Amino acid sequence: MTEDPKFAQLRARLAEVNDLTKAATLLFWDQRVMMPPGGSAARAEALATVSRLAQERFVADDIGKLLEDLRGLEESSDYDSFEASLIRVTRHDYEKATRVPPELVGEMRRASVYALSAWGPAKAESDFEQLRPHLEKNLELRHRYVECFDPAEETYDVLLDDYEPNMKTAEVREVFDELKEELLPLIKEIGDAGEIDDSFLTGEFDPAVQRGLGLEIVRHFGYTDEEWRLHETPHPFMSSPGVGDIRLTANFRPTDLHSLFASMHEFGHGVYEWGVEPSLARTPLGSGVSLGVHESQSRLWENLVGRSRSFWRFFYPRLQEAFPQQLGSVDEEAFFRAVNKVHPSLIRIDADEVTYNMHIILRFELEQELIENRLAVKDLPEAWNARMAEYLGVDVPDDARGVLQDMHWAAGNLGYFPTYSLGNVISVQIWERAKEDLGDLDERFERGEFGELREWLREHLYRMGRKFTPQETIERATGSRIDAKPYVRYLREKLAPQHAS
Amino acid sequence: MTEDPKFAQLRARLAEVNDLTKAATLLFWDQRVMMPPGGSAARAEALATVSRLAQERFVADDIGKLLEDLRGLEESSDYDSFEASLIRVTRHDYEKATRVPPELVGEMRRASVYALSAWGPAKAESDFEQLRPHLEKNLELRHRYVECFDPAEETYDVLLDDYEPNMKTAEVREVFDELKEELLPLIKEIGDAGEIDDSFLTGEFDPAVQRGLGLEIVRHFGYTDEEWRLHETPHPFMSSPGVGDIRLTANFRPTDLHSLFASMHEFGHGVYEWGVEPSLARTPLGSGVSLGVHESQSRLWENLVGRSRSFWRFFYPRLQEAFPQQLGSVDEEAFFRAVNKVHPSLIRIDADEVTYNMHIILRFELEQELIENRLAVKDLPEAWNARMAEYLGVDVPDDARGVLQDMHWAAGNLGYFPTYSLGNVISVQIWERAKEDLGDLDERFERGEFGELREWLREHLYRMGRKFTPQETIERATGSRIDAKPYVRYLREKLAPQHAS
Repeated sequence: MTEDPKFAQLRARLAEVNDLTKAATLLFWDQRVMMPPGGSAARAEALATVSRLAQERFVADDIGKLLEDLRGLEESSDYDSFEASLIRVTRHDYEKATRVPPELVGEMRRASVYALSAWGPAKAESDFEQLRPHLEKNLELRHRYVECFDPAEETYDVLLDDYEPNMKTAEVREVFDELKEELLPLIKEIGDAGEIDDSFLTGEFDPAVQRGLGLEIVRHFGYTDEEWRLHETPHPFMSSPGVGDIRLTANFRPTDLHSLFASMHEFGHGVYEWGVEPSLARTPLGSGVSLGVHESQSRLWENLVGRSRSFWRFFYPRLQEAFPQQLGSVDEEAFFRAVNKVHPSLIRIDADEVTYNMHIILRFELEQELIENRLAVKDLPEAWNARMAEYLGVDVPDDARGVLQDMHWAAGNLGYFPTYSLGNVISVQIWERAKEDLGDLDERFERGEFGELREWLREHLYRMGRKFTPQETIERATGSRIDAKPYVRYLREKLAPQHAS
Repeated sequence: MTEDPKFAQLRARLAEVNDLTKAATLLFWDQRVMMPPGGSAARAEALATVSRLAQERFVADDIGKLLEDLRGLEESSDYDSFEASLIRVTRHDYEKATRVPPELVGEMRRASVYALSAWGPAKAESDFEQLRPHLEKNLELRHRYVECFDPAEETYDVLLDDYEPNMKTAEVREVFDELKEELLPLIKEIGDAGEIDDSFLTGEFDPAVQRGLGLEIVRHFGYTDEEWRLHETPHPFMSSPGVGDIRLTANFRPTDLHSLFASMHEFGHGVYEWGVEPSLARTPLGSGVSLGVHESQSRLWENLVGRSRSFWRFFYPRLQEAFPQQLGSVDEEAFFRAVNKVHPSLIRIDADEVTYNMHIILRFELEQELIENRLAVKDLPEAWNARMAEYLGVDVPDDARGVLQDMHWAAGNLGYFPTYSLGNVISVQIWERAKEDLGDLDERFERGEFGELREWLREHLYRMGRKFTPQETIERATGSRIDAKPYVRYLREKLAPQHAS
């Protein structure tokens, strides 16, 4: 069986684009992890050139021509086949990419660089006014971006599609409305039940010991020296500069144990990329399918595994052994309750499993109001503060701890935030499906066995890469479309006060 | 004053090529320093693509056209000007690059990959026969490569030009003949004077302590956290993925102090790249001018600084303090003599300052005989062994420690070796010139002051980058063409037995 020559040509062209993209990935990883600061200016140039070439060579006319010529092969091939999937997904990417003039792409990139430069000082000085003109510029450019596409049901659909392809705003709203309805009373119940003591989670925790423990944990999950690396950076992230090459970073703060959960979180992102079918490498299919599904895996390993009672039954003795002074007199149950404490607070990235979603829903709503011109940028701080009071009962003392806390809007990423909560929702859908197949996971976790879960996830989810849309992927993995109910049920079972009705 | 628009176009095109080259540099650095082994296959693809694109975009017709159109600007500009230099050097590179058909480039690259794969096992098993057919293939391809160019005075000129541009075989031969004539008797004199004790240089030397000392030394020389990095690899090398970003590696063996000298050596390569005029960045002018001049700087910092009495007057107390058990009872003079011991031996990379050159001259002579078909590959081991006996009085016990010891010929690098000894020769020419300007350097070194030397080198050598040919560069820095006399004089003064006439 010989490969269709046009298909072979398409693959070769896409492989080249992918190689450039992976080179850019490494340039970026190195900039954040290894590069001495003196290299910044040269790196910015190299990164811009390699990214631009990757883009130019992807939107080239010959790729469009090949995609047209391959309609026959696509139609005659099984929907699930490599051929049909590659042509279908590439066409979707190509049509999006060719809609946007390169000048606008360049303008958006430049504006976000300026806005990010302004964001740092604005946050440091808690001065929204410094960022305001940049956000207005970003918003104006997003309006021009939206106009490049056919009119959608809702304007926000176009933005969302960049992060969660083919997902509609209405679908997200339905999920989030259900979350809101269930979580607001749950937060109140938990608040009424009184404070949980988590004071022992703050103290002196030697970063080197934390690093060792973090590595130990992810090795139990599946990290190997053959294919993985772990480095330190101020902001943790995961990067994969190529198949069989998964890089995690963590931030080992000397004052708390946050890094353990952050390492599990980044492992979840990494293991998803690691598990993509290797034969999809060097094609647009060779990575995770969307930010939401990606986040489902970071959350699954961080929260469903890493904040479970059974995980800590296994690992808490090791943690006590490593920090006898700090945790010697804290029992497993007290520790478990502390790392699962629910408490409304100001900062999204420090939020617990329940209130986190309200931080997201707030941003999702404000983003829609902004892009639909129902809210002016200048009124954003006020709207933010009002909604924080309404959803979480929290008073925002200043914009640094309010509307300025995240860099996403400065970076121009409108439509990104909802994927975080979608990830939470999806994580439990997948989790329930895995338990149906595998039976009791807790028993395995208590023995330090995570391999069967990992392999189930690889087989039923990771392998697919980007062959299907996110919704198709979720359906294939779980048997149902995105659905908030399992997640809400999980939160209630795990976190509602025991004495609650 | 506005820039000539064609010149601006040329710069933009060259900047893009340079960005791709720097991306390839990082891909290569990361592969050797950071990448988990699982990433090899994907990295090989990415590196091949980025290198190929850099090459393709350089040999493109529009660059040739721009170079033609810019002849006027070149002729009307001062020879030393940025404009004239950039056009002149780019034309030289372009004419070379476009002479060689891409198929031959590809064939040479593939053949060297296969030959390098064969070299490892052949060396491990000391079996020349395993490598022989690959060397024959490499040699055949080098013949085809030579045929791409106008006939030169000597065939070897074409090979040499890849590593030492514009240098002629006859010039190298003249230098090497003088070296040979002076060094053979010097080696004999030293041998007759009896053995120097260097047994204390072998023992237990904690690699972590060595790393600290190596860093301490290069910091005294000019390494800063702002622009430099030092990592560990089995084979030390220097790499610069961009302006203001200099990466050294070292190999900290637990059994000896070799790493200290290797770190100084790589610092020398690094500080040359570091000192190139930053405005030459993103052009073909923005790096060291040739392997020979590069090696002159690694040797200068390793040997002329790092094996000097005055350096150790400054640093030996620190070394003793770090290794009191091993060196507490060894005085400074004994240590100085040990690290400068001359002794004929089998392996080039372990050779001392004097005998090293005979290893190189042997290879230079054999390479010429091979490319001129005066020596068949199958007769190479015998010729090697005979010449080792003649030049160094050493019996080669097996090919692993003979003709198979280096990877250069397997990699297809014929014409590379002479640059090592040219570097030695040039290093002392530059050194003498620096001393003429700066006066006594020893006094400064004894106080740990190396900044004036570094800044002199930057001002008089490094700054030039590739604006001129290597010979022009040497002449501008030293006032004379390449000349073996200062080097021979230096070796004799430093290393000849004290009682010699």
